[in-house]
Amino acid sequence: MQRADVHYLCIKDFHLPMNSTDEQIAAFQAKLKSKGVTGYAVGPIYMKSEAEIDQSFEYAKRVGVKLIVGVPNYDLLPYVDKKVKETGFHYAIHMHGPDTKTYPDAEDVWNHVKDLDPRIGMCLDIGHDTRNGKDPVADLKLYQARVFDLHLKDVTGTTKLGYSLEVGRGVIHFPQLVRMLREVGYAGVCSLEHEKDMTDPAMGIAESIGYFRGVIEATK
Amino acid sequence: MQRADVHYLCIKDFHLPMNSTDEQIAAFQAKLKSKGVTGYAVGPIYMKSEAEIDQSFEYAKRVGVKLIVGVPNYDLLPYVDKKVKETGFHYAIHMHGPDTKTYPDAEDVWNHVKDLDPRIGMCLDIGHDTRNGKDPVADLKLYQARVFDLHLKDVTGTTKLGYSLEVGRGVIHFPQLVRMLREVGYAGVCSLEHEKDMTDPAMGIAESIGYFRGVIEATK
Repeated sequence: MQRADVHYLCIKDFHLPMNSTDEQIAAFQAKLKSKGVTGYAVGPIYMKSEAEIDQSFEYAKRVGVKLIVGVPNYDLLPYVDKKVKETGFHYAIHMHGPDTKTYPDAEDVWNHVKDLDPRIGMCLDIGHDTRNGKDPVADLKLYQARVFDLHLKDVTGTTKLGYSLEVGRGVIHFPQLVRMLREVGYAGVCSLEHEKDMTDPAMGIAESIGYFRGVIEATK
Repeated sequence: MQRADVHYLCIKDFHLPMNSTDEQIAAFQAKLKSKGVTGYAVGPIYMKSEAEIDQSFEYAKRVGVKLIVGVPNYDLLPYVDKKVKETGFHYAIHMHGPDTKTYPDAEDVWNHVKDLDPRIGMCLDIGHDTRNGKDPVADLKLYQARVFDLHLKDVTGTTKLGYSLEVGRGVIHFPQLVRMLREVGYAGVCSLEHEKDMTDPAMGIAESIGYFRGVIEATK
């Protein structure tokens, strides 16, 4: 993160296990702080029971963030609603394209959350939304009131066969995306989720960050 | 280059020594071809005598390119002119900012070549031009007829103290640069000259390439 000049992190269990002690959490936060990094959310966390939801909210509280990126079973949404009301936290549901039956795209998340507390919304994964045949730029506009987080990536195609690669090399139109982020006044984080060359991702991460920054600068 | 999806190389002596045999040159060219890379020029080459100029033109001929990036002593420019007329090659003089007395910036190169053969021009190093207090975007417009190559980089400041870093992190305005490249119909290569983290440059190279591509896409 330091070499790519990135300063916001969505904390996942592989960064900081959910059963970490208070001391381990404090040490992790001190490490982030020493590098100028802010942990802005936790997740994505899959939640298949009320107990797992309780555990996730407790984890967020102990980590000191008020945004959870999660994937709750559909039938647990009323319980998520209850927890959001109790804590005041925001809850962003992650989508996973045609790979999963639950929450394939932004429309599906919207339909499941639109009648719940307004603090329940989505992490717009522009890659998976595209892979489910949707236009993430249009979806950002449509569902802007419930977009609390964004997974930045590019994909090679608009179907299940589309796979993730460096930002700018695929089919997503980033100048349009950035212009829409400005148009809707998006106030969340654009969080790179780089899924190529998992054992040696540094170059792809750097290229992706660079591309997105270039688009931001050139569309000012 | 393959990982950063880069396909043009200015061949320098550390890639292919100037005293390479024909077999070594052929092997190098075969390697480039296998990676989809075109060697489009040789250099930069410092030339302090007529013999070194002869050697450089012979090297270019053997490598199979018609563009030489060079730094000839001022008093050798008439001999460069003669060689350009003989071979039909283009000759792009490199500039090096306030670090060197010869060719500090685009204006200095222009003043030394404007009355010579029109195939003698410059490799516009946007970093060194900036470090000499000049605006490389304005200089590209002014001297467009003689800009045959471009060294892409960013720098932290507009003086000798400015140092090179990832494209987009410094003081050069890349959207303006790209718009000017289009305005003047630049037909050459923009060649990244990455000078940071020399022992581990891959991330900086990738970020720089990504940033420049993002600017290109967003200014279309």
